[in-house]
Amino acid sequence: MIFLFTDFGTADLYVGQVKTVLHSQAPKEPVIDLLHEAPAFNTRGSAHLLAALAARLPKGSVTLAVVDPGVGGPRQPVAVLADGRWFVGPDNGLMSVAAARAKTCEAYSIGWRPEALSASFHGRDLFAPVAAMLARGGRKKARLGKAALSVGFGPADLAEVIYVDHYGNLVTGLRAARVERLRGLAIGGRTVRYAPVFSEAKSGEVFWYENSLGLVEIAANSASAERVLGLRIGAPVGLASRA
Amino acid sequence: MIFLFTDFGTADLYVGQVKTVLHSQAPKEPVIDLLHEAPAFNTRGSAHLLAALAARLPKGSVTLAVVDPGVGGPRQPVAVLADGRWFVGPDNGLMSVAAARAKTCEAYSIGWRPEALSASFHGRDLFAPVAAMLARGGRKKARLGKAALSVGFGPADLAEVIYVDHYGNLVTGLRAARVERLRGLAIGGRTVRYAPVFSEAKSGEVFWYENSLGLVEIAANSASAERVLGLRIGAPVGLASRA
Amino acid sequence: MIFLFTDFGTADLYVGQVKTVLHSQAPKEPVIDLLHEAPAFNTRGSAHLLAALAARLPKGSVTLAVVDPGVGGPRQPVAVLADGRWFVGPDNGLMSVAAARAKTCEAYSIGWRPEALSASFHGRDLFAPVAAMLARGGRKKARLGKAALSVGFGPADLAEVIYVDHYGNLVTGLRAARVERLRGLAIGGRTVRYAPVFSEAKSGEVFWYENSLGLVEIAANSASAERVLGLRIGAPVGLASRA
Repeated sequence: MIFLFTDFGTADLYVGQVKTVLHSQAPKEPVIDLLHEAPAFNTRGSAHLLAALAARLPKGSVTLAVVDPGVGGPRQPVAVLADGRWFVGPDNGLMSVAAARAKTCEAYSIGWRPEALSASFHGRDLFAPVAAMLARGGRKKARLGKAALSVGFGPADLAEVIYVDHYGNLVTGLRAARVERLRGLAIGGRTVRYAPVFSEAKSGEVFWYENSLGLVEIAANSASAERVLGLRIGAPVGLASRA
Repeated sequence: MIFLFTDFGTADLYVGQVKTVLHSQAPKEPVIDLLHEAPAFNTRGSAHLLAALAARLPKGSVTLAVVDPGVGGPRQPVAVLADGRWFVGPDNGLMSVAAARAKTCEAYSIGWRPEALSASFHGRDLFAPVAAMLARGGRKKARLGKAALSVGFGPADLAEVIYVDHYGNLVTGLRAARVERLRGLAIGGRTVRYAPVFSEAKSGEVFWYENSLGLVEIAANSASAERVLGLRIGAPVGLASRA
Repeated sequence: MIFLFTDFGTADLYVGQVKTVLHSQAPKEPVIDLLHEAPAFNTRGSAHLLAALAARLPKGSVTLAVVDPGVGGPRQPVAVLADGRWFVGPDNGLMSVAAARAKTCEAYSIGWRPEALSASFHGRDLFAPVAAMLARGGRKKARLGKAALSVGFGPADLAEVIYVDHYGNLVTGLRAARVERLRGLAIGGRTVRYAPVFSEAKSGEVFWYENSLGLVEIAANSASAERVLGLRIGAPVGLASRA
């Protein structure tokens, strides 16, 4: 199974070109769009979102992970095998949170290069063929060599909003299992309390809960937390000071 | 074939997680996105849209239908077999219009539960595995039991706008076969006439026609009816009074 | 492989209905969304975008190409075999640029008609079944007959913006291989210079480069060229006068 995690845009003309390569070169592999609206130009936030999603992917799968503001510059392509799952993309930190949290992890440089490499679309020209090779077991063909990641954000949580969904819920880079339920969270100048489910908050109330990826998410019952709080990706989140 | 009809958002990170489950558990079934922009929080409008789409789905198919504002609350999961097509989702009325219009229909409670059930994403954790089971013929595995739907909107048409497409056309819950062609429709304080095709309306004129799902749709030739009329989902539609 | 190039909207309820037909009638063919946001009502700009994408499609593939403002009117359906790739859609010029640039090209009328043809959705009722037939080799079943395209935009480049992507980059209908690198381009009342990659432009600077489809694209480093220039689809592009 090949997964796509990018900032290429769901509605744009890039994803179809990547899939054309994947279906041509690994025709038996199902290809699943995880997300094409990863926070653009934001490799750190994207890395935390990818790490949360990665934990649920099947072992043996290959994820094409591309948020690549430096495409065409000196950053190198990299493949990471973390807890039995492959990730292929730019060596700019994007995979580094998933890598740092994995029990077992190996990073590889990629020696293979396409005959024609566009300046701006390595997702199609380089990462997709390599993802197809790895999905078919072709480590040699991809000319992998042991390496270390050159940018690493580390395993620690990120106390920021890293994604806003279409309901207006604010996903943070905090893992909910590590946050005390009784304590409120400070965000946008106010304190929001914990509620286990939407129906336990009052209508319109902003609260936090553990979302389906295990992350702290700020939501509002029957309303958009994004609109109520007027916040966006990058907004800091903190523990409320004790009363 | 497994169909998805949800309000999860086309561009968001939810659909990919549902597909990961479906491809893992029913790898041979094609999965088709019918719609992920069903009117959110609006189970009645969504139920009418689903009923119109359902009539065109292949017999033997399974549709995961999730518009579920009450997720995490007391509403139960349900499976419905209507005219040979399965529907799996919350028992909140969403499937009840399709069910009420079917010639043959059976409703079932779902006894199967996953090991881990998130508070907010039953589409991934419960409905997707059950849809995969039914697509593979696994009624027993899903632990289905005869039941009745607890919320029913009935078979009658809904005289409201239930969907607005990206061209600005307003889809209503009225079946066109039941509306007199000669009579105008009253919407947004004006009367709009019937035209069989776009090219028979004047440029910019608002008119109604029978859309490709058999529903009354309010459109404007070379313009957005949504913008011309300033209306949205939920706006009432009526028969114009006779002159 | 079957490709979809339409203005049906990525998030709307049309693409799923087309795929239902394709999967039912050609179940073994992968179906890939190239683009569902082709410039609506703009067959000329869409034709140039399709021609640029077409050059990268596998030989033997079938592309359903539908930007069809005249649906329900007198325009006829057509199938084109250009350089070994099939295109199926309305005979309104949409395929004519790809056809005019092909080394070998044959156009065919389509004699097959469905039992039920909606007034507004020939993509589902006529073009999808014919695309499925051609993908399975069924020229006879589609009742193809030699014909000529009735609208032809010709092979020449189009000196206009034909697409704006979600980063705000402006794609033009100019093939970059034909544009002198040293000369600037005139767009929106200013002159923009050539840069080979984003990182060679200053932050916020508007420049042009050869995009991954081989077209001239106006971009801005770390900014949206669309917003900086205030331009949209249809905006003219020219060669800057020599100093």
